[in-house]
Amino acid sequence: MQYPEPVAKLIDGFMHLPGIGEKTATRLAFYTIDMPKDEVQQFAQALNDTKEKLTFCSVCGNITETDPCEICSDPMRDQSQVLVVEQPKDIATMEKMKDYHGLYHVLHGVLSPMEGKGPDDINISSLIKRLQKNETIKEVIIATNATPEGDATAMYLARLLKPAGLKVTRLARGLAVGSDIEYADEMTLFRAVEGRTEM
Amino acid sequence: MQYPEPVAKLIDGFMHLPGIGEKTATRLAFYTIDMPKDEVQQFAQALNDTKEKLTFCSVCGNITETDPCEICSDPMRDQSQVLVVEQPKDIATMEKMKDYHGLYHVLHGVLSPMEGKGPDDINISSLIKRLQKNETIKEVIIATNATPEGDATAMYLARLLKPAGLKVTRLARGLAVGSDIEYADEMTLFRAVEGRTEM
Repeated sequence: MQYPEPVAKLIDGFMHLPGIGEKTATRLAFYTIDMPKDEVQQFAQALNDTKEKLTFCSVCGNITETDPCEICSDPMRDQSQVLVVEQPKDIATMEKMKDYHGLYHVLHGVLSPMEGKGPDDINISSLIKRLQKNETIKEVIIATNATPEGDATAMYLARLLKPAGLKVTRLARGLAVGSDIEYADEMTLFRAVEGRTEM
Repeated sequence: MQYPEPVAKLIDGFMHLPGIGEKTATRLAFYTIDMPKDEVQQFAQALNDTKEKLTFCSVCGNITETDPCEICSDPMRDQSQVLVVEQPKDIATMEKMKDYHGLYHVLHGVLSPMEGKGPDDINISSLIKRLQKNETIKEVIIATNATPEGDATAMYLARLLKPAGLKVTRLARGLAVGSDIEYADEMTLFRAVEGRTEM
């Protein structure tokens, strides 16, 4: 006996998601079968809406229902700063901090020679054009991930933008708040010492 | 800035699933946004089909597209044995073993005084009726989970069915195949010694 076709297809659907193998997918599928009908339908609708209603902001590359996005069209945001992130979800993470009020730019990736990703494969040219058009922008804050690829992309952007007279900064490296020195890796400790601040 | 509404709804959808918290739900939602449109639509369709096309077999309680289910309507299955499981997914697990050819009955739960679940709240009365109607059934194999609730349910069923002259058996307890004695708990070891077999 195989699973009934609808169950098999649902398991397959869950297995397309990252970090979900056959066992978890099966568990989720059988859980879904027991869920109230309207909850399942809302979930299915949300999946469809994701593809129907969402688009990328033509200014910053964020995901949005309106173009330009809420942040780009908000006159209260500080128009002199642009914070560059790798992915749209990074914007949501930064916004949770509630202490940055400037604009954003989403690269949709990082430079990665290993994966054959060069400057033309990520959203850099639109950033350059945006900076050329908007003379209000004074500072570019690079917030790529603290990975080799993220660092390389940050270096590349800094070299590209500094000659144009822009202030280019990046997020500080150091100990995570609440972390133990015992568990910090050498590179993090090195950067924490290097970037030490006076008390 | 909140997430755009479709994203927020999708995150909420994922969070309704077991073992998925806000962080994982957010990760899955953003992954979904990057998935090809047809894959997402197929997944949404599978979710809807789960509720539209599946029903419970009126004989055994298994989930099925047809009523009675494939197993109940298969004349090649051994009509003298009924294996009682807690959930429909347990049938799929048993079938993977490929060595049981009898029928099934799904309780859709276990007796659990703690949760206020008595004999009337699970699929016992339909089992009794089924056994009364089908004189071909000679053995009831109880395959509830090896938990206190599963054991209590097994005891209850045994007491109910044995007076009717049926053979009532349950799955063996002991060491899992491939497991180390070092890591076995006391109860499992006790049952393994108690149920030892001659070599």
